[in-house]
Amino acid sequence: MPKRAQHAISPTRAENYPEWYQQVVKAADLAETSDVRGCMVIKPWGYAIWENMQRILDGMFKATGHENAYFPLFIPMSFLEKEAEHVEGFAKECAVVTHHRLEPNPDGGLRPAPAAELDEPLIVRPTSETIIGATFARWLESYRDLPILINQWANVVRWELRTRMFLRTAEFLWQEGHTVHATEQEARDETRLMLDVYADFAQNTMAMPVIRGEKTASERFPGAVATYSIEALMQDGKALQAGTSHFLGQNFAKAQEIKFQDRSGHEVYAWTTSWGVSTRLVGGLIMTHSDDDGLVLPPTLAPAQVVILPIYKNDQERGQVLAYCESLQQELQAECYAEQSLRVKIDDRDLRGGEKKWQWVKRGVPLRVEIGPRDVAAGGVFAARRDVGGKGQGVPRGEFVAQAAQTLADIQQALLDRATQARDQATARINTLAEFEAYFAESAPGGLAYCHFVDGPEMEAQLKALKVTARCVPLEAPVESGSCIFTGQPSQRRGVFARAY
Amino acid sequence: MPKRAQHAISPTRAENYPEWYQQVVKAADLAETSDVRGCMVIKPWGYAIWENMQRILDGMFKATGHENAYFPLFIPMSFLEKEAEHVEGFAKECAVVTHHRLEPNPDGGLRPAPAAELDEPLIVRPTSETIIGATFARWLESYRDLPILINQWANVVRWELRTRMFLRTAEFLWQEGHTVHATEQEARDETRLMLDVYADFAQNTMAMPVIRGEKTASERFPGAVATYSIEALMQDGKALQAGTSHFLGQNFAKAQEIKFQDRSGHEVYAWTTSWGVSTRLVGGLIMTHSDDDGLVLPPTLAPAQVVILPIYKNDQERGQVLAYCESLQQELQAECYAEQSLRVKIDDRDLRGGEKKWQWVKRGVPLRVEIGPRDVAAGGVFAARRDVGGKGQGVPRGEFVAQAAQTLADIQQALLDRATQARDQATARINTLAEFEAYFAESAPGGLAYCHFVDGPEMEAQLKALKVTARCVPLEAPVESGSCIFTGQPSQRRGVFARAY
Repeated sequence: MPKRAQHAISPTRAENYPEWYQQVVKAADLAETSDVRGCMVIKPWGYAIWENMQRILDGMFKATGHENAYFPLFIPMSFLEKEAEHVEGFAKECAVVTHHRLEPNPDGGLRPAPAAELDEPLIVRPTSETIIGATFARWLESYRDLPILINQWANVVRWELRTRMFLRTAEFLWQEGHTVHATEQEARDETRLMLDVYADFAQNTMAMPVIRGEKTASERFPGAVATYSIEALMQDGKALQAGTSHFLGQNFAKAQEIKFQDRSGHEVYAWTTSWGVSTRLVGGLIMTHSDDDGLVLPPTLAPAQVVILPIYKNDQERGQVLAYCESLQQELQAECYAEQSLRVKIDDRDLRGGEKKWQWVKRGVPLRVEIGPRDVAAGGVFAARRDVGGKGQGVPRGEFVAQAAQTLADIQQALLDRATQARDQATARINTLAEFEAYFAESAPGGLAYCHFVDGPEMEAQLKALKVTARCVPLEAPVESGSCIFTGQPSQRRGVFARAY
Repeated sequence: MPKRAQHAISPTRAENYPEWYQQVVKAADLAETSDVRGCMVIKPWGYAIWENMQRILDGMFKATGHENAYFPLFIPMSFLEKEAEHVEGFAKECAVVTHHRLEPNPDGGLRPAPAAELDEPLIVRPTSETIIGATFARWLESYRDLPILINQWANVVRWELRTRMFLRTAEFLWQEGHTVHATEQEARDETRLMLDVYADFAQNTMAMPVIRGEKTASERFPGAVATYSIEALMQDGKALQAGTSHFLGQNFAKAQEIKFQDRSGHEVYAWTTSWGVSTRLVGGLIMTHSDDDGLVLPPTLAPAQVVILPIYKNDQERGQVLAYCESLQQELQAECYAEQSLRVKIDDRDLRGGEKKWQWVKRGVPLRVEIGPRDVAAGGVFAARRDVGGKGQGVPRGEFVAQAAQTLADIQQALLDRATQARDQATARINTLAEFEAYFAESAPGGLAYCHFVDGPEMEAQLKALKVTARCVPLEAPVESGSCIFTGQPSQRRGVFARAY
């Protein structure tokens, strides 16, 4: 009987993709559910990935002229009432603070003190356009104060009913950029600039290919004139919106009196934007690269890029092997990848070798090195790449060290190439509704469908029935005559459609 | 008539210290009050100082073996009920979430939806011992899992009635370390280690001298066995608690079932610690170094260490001067201070020279350089140190660049020396209650008083009447026989007393 292939994660992707995802998160020690409904605990390995994302994104924001600041967690309820569409979008499921004190309950335990009810309830921010806009209105007097280019790293809360770790949680971590400009063109340019920053980050740091495009009307941010997004395709054929950039026009400026005196001395409304990415990116990272043995991390974001596992049987061997590992670690740390010293970890925990090795496989460390007495004697290392799997091979130590940074660069490129190839293979140009229905049939693998369309309620109704969504109109889409597959109306560009997270 | 000395900040410290503080915060563009009661907006210059604090502290935490993680913002009300003293301390003024949805109010506007009341109210974390402890209880199985060394960077909320920017706000930013250990000694060592990390940071990064010591019973963290703090003296003679480290014994372990199987196979309770510093440190920084011209920043924390102000009258001069400034900036950025490239900013905004110069004085930039056509012609710079005041002086450019890092180091040392001298001058050994009362009389400058004492309700009552607090029992205090100035009982060590923030 042929031996069945063994995998570290059960079920495999093919067997049950959603459950595979949860098991990868668990096996890699990334996060877990908490005692608070819908909120997760981000464990050290998961948080370290987010810290790397933060560090790199923060550098990109600062390089494009933005400064960080911090605004209140709470938003007065009345602020949400000011922008009509924004209310619709965000005044629904949210955490509402109504009291500012607890007191002993006559029946035991505690209760919110009836005497300490707030005059006006406070909302835990689901996003900060309103509170930041009110602040900008105070800051802004003259055209000389513009542009205002601010970013905030913060936690936000949206009371989601169905949650999934990293992808959709009641509380999540994110950054939100908020900018104010003197002219429409400048604000539109900013919106596109930050979309490009996100696309650059997704492709070159996360090794996750994305499509930049504009959202259809129904997928627009509440209160925005135009919403742009980067869209990635996961291994199960579903799309993930990985970041958004909004041109808010003068909607929030008018709702919040964000005005300034222009060069000719007239008081005019400003133009604003906002843009954000969140810990959802960690979910996208997991689903883009991981395999049936667990997490696979691109070297740029891996908390450890190389893990060294010493192998020995007794104290004498231990001394020799550890000394060798430590000098190897130092040599590797003197090397540089992506403008940083290599991140190298020695794992000398008292665990069986096989268990230890598989922990690091499941945690997705790009390069795994095993060092035993024979490697010490031979002046070699036994090294394995996580992305290609397999047992690895012996390499002379000097050669391994000299090539380590290049090997990491090769892994980074290989992950992007593999993900791009998978995405392209799961992409189709579709010209009829029948084809479209077949492409998104429940038994079909799904993927991205490029179709002619005319945005409107008729299309939305058909999409809803098929459980498919319009992802975006790609910026790169060429002008091309055709007819909407939903309505038959003439269309000039194709949009991208997919099932989505 | 003699000319009255002019100062950029009005009132001066001598005229009205609390108001001077608010004006320094405003003039340096550090923070402002927000539309939410008790919450502040941290503006870019203030946030950049906090980012520098975070970066350096985070490195120190990681160097001592800690990892970052993230836990929920919300704490179920029942969690606060578990540790009796902790309830007393933290279940009082806090933000209570009672609803998860808003709906249109029949009278207009919005209201918390009555149908969306939570079964159990959630508290916005005032501190996270309970929610993190519950998580640790799940993580911990065996002695092999210990120690658990975790830190969290987060926002917390305490519904303070009287707020003051950075020093006491309803929401503030902080880090909270939470650790679990197998033995009492290890937990006690951790508590002291982190106190030392805080003291090191205060003295060597903030240039703020501190006393490390143990808190008296009434000042202990609710639920702790022992609380240690670092205490600094502000220029108005009041002390500021700048960081705390708590040995929690087994109190939280027992309340939350944080147990493990020890080497002999028995299930035993673990020992825990927690420790934290917050944006309050920014308030301490301001009050330690600033003068009647505004903020004075130590170079280690200054968002810009050098600001270059180009001065010119026409376009031709502008081209020459700016080119000179830019190459000067590059040369300075190639220099290194505190293991980082120098942070150098050119301010070419279209503002009058005097206004621009005073903005940077008030913002506390350590080194200010003015460059005009004559400096370009002479190959020089006109440089002024913020800490010593005065107009500055001409220096050959090469000399200035070569000495820049050393000058910053000199400024850092000078600030620490000045603050230490001020602290020592405002310190007294006091041996009688009469002396003590005179020292803390309303008309007296106050300061730190080292006194023999016996901790207890009698001392507390007398201190309360005098509006003085026991700050700590310094770790360095020698054993020395004496008698308590409040009760006459025999005492073996002196404690430090002061009015406090």
